[in-house]
Amino acid sequence: MQATTITLIGAGNVATQLGIALQDQGYAISQVYSPTKKSAEALAKKVNAAAITDLKKLHTGSVIYIIAVKDDAIETVAKQLRFNDQIVVHTSGTVSIDVLKKTSKNYGVLYPLQTFSKGKTVDLKTTPVCIEASNKSASTTLQYFAKSFSGNVQQVSSGQRKTIHLAAVFACNFSNHMYAVAEDILKKDKLSLDLLQPLIEETAAKTKGNSPVKMQTGPAVRGDKKTMEAHLKLISDAGTKKIYQLISKEIIKLHKK
Amino acid sequence: MQATTITLIGAGNVATQLGIALQDQGYAISQVYSPTKKSAEALAKKVNAAAITDLKKLHTGSVIYIIAVKDDAIETVAKQLRFNDQIVVHTSGTVSIDVLKKTSKNYGVLYPLQTFSKGKTVDLKTTPVCIEASNKSASTTLQYFAKSFSGNVQQVSSGQRKTIHLAAVFACNFSNHMYAVAEDILKKDKLSLDLLQPLIEETAAKTKGNSPVKMQTGPAVRGDKKTMEAHLKLISDAGTKKIYQLISKEIIKLHKK
Repeated sequence: MQATTITLIGAGNVATQLGIALQDQGYAISQVYSPTKKSAEALAKKVNAAAITDLKKLHTGSVIYIIAVKDDAIETVAKQLRFNDQIVVHTSGTVSIDVLKKTSKNYGVLYPLQTFSKGKTVDLKTTPVCIEASNKSASTTLQYFAKSFSGNVQQVSSGQRKTIHLAAVFACNFSNHMYAVAEDILKKDKLSLDLLQPLIEETAAKTKGNSPVKMQTGPAVRGDKKTMEAHLKLISDAGTKKIYQLISKEIIKLHKK
Repeated sequence: MQATTITLIGAGNVATQLGIALQDQGYAISQVYSPTKKSAEALAKKVNAAAITDLKKLHTGSVIYIIAVKDDAIETVAKQLRFNDQIVVHTSGTVSIDVLKKTSKNYGVLYPLQTFSKGKTVDLKTTPVCIEASNKSASTTLQYFAKSFSGNVQQVSSGQRKTIHLAAVFACNFSNHMYAVAEDILKKDKLSLDLLQPLIEETAAKTKGNSPVKMQTGPAVRGDKKTMEAHLKLISDAGTKKIYQLISKEIIKLHKK
């Protein structure tokens, strides 16, 4: 049996992690495109593919073309793709499926719900992958494809995908900013964030099977005004003070309901 | 060799987790105090100790007396304790060491940096324990004691302990509120927070060895105004909208520096 052939359009974090996972699963990666030669070649080498820096050189023989580029570059790339029935997908949480309308009869979205960083391998098997497709046949193929590398494939609507992306901003980017503020506070007293690492991981782990609102601890949920006032006095940065006040207020409000 | 004897004053989450860990390490728990008979008895049973509901019934034979009660109850409890040189500690991140001044010649703080919930065992070996003591001898004993159940014992000053507790509010309580908001957003579209669990855990895990400010991803750090505007339109709750605006602004500010 011949391996299903995939083409990667993009060579950033998402393309890299997907490419490696797909190769592990026995897929053949035909080409890797990036406008930056060095990036295209680096990923192409990792996944045994050919590097290209011009979309005109794309072969048409792949089954699936994965566009994993920055959100605002997806449309520009899509305009240069014209296939017959090969499946074209992008991997964005926010960009509309419609930008791919003219690329092929079969198109869709394959949105991996994870934060990808350079040099840190992510376990795609446990990563939820949200699927959206232009038609039933493309949907079926995409589901089989996604299930081959992720144990958690979800069919979602465009509206749900937007909701998920918004929620992810809070759960990932904003919680990460809370860690950044904590590090900044500790630095002023010559302390390291390492001290809080077990606490951070335990707080995250607790979301498994528990509603976070019910697991809340700390001065705000206890209504401990004395501690909150002492904390505000300790904070020198005006923005950090505003965050402390607003989130404490929101926690108190939530628990009064 | 006779086991070092410990007395637990309090029967909540912290007292329970400490008690179980101490017993595992071969300490003998003499008594467990709680004003609520049921709570005292429940923990006493778990750690093979006697339950008491009256502080007048405290034996004086223990080496260390651990006050693990709510912050605002520590002073009231401390006023009822008069020892000679037995070590008395509380476990709070915020309460001054001075409230224990009259309890004994030897007193201190043993602050485990972790979030303790009912029914969820925490690995104390990886939990940082912050130590503060009234004198050098008490400090030495407390360090030996803490090192027997935690692999991460830190000697901190009162000021540092307050800083750590403030940073922990951001890293634990406030990031947990971000998870709560995410769950609320998902619920409105009939989606479960389970979808974001791998993302939440990966974001937390990334703080290990990395500065969170450098690991930031998402629309704010990219300066992606279009997505941020679309997100704000999606949010119906006024408080959630304020959080989105404030934290995005702070992330943008931080990365302009």
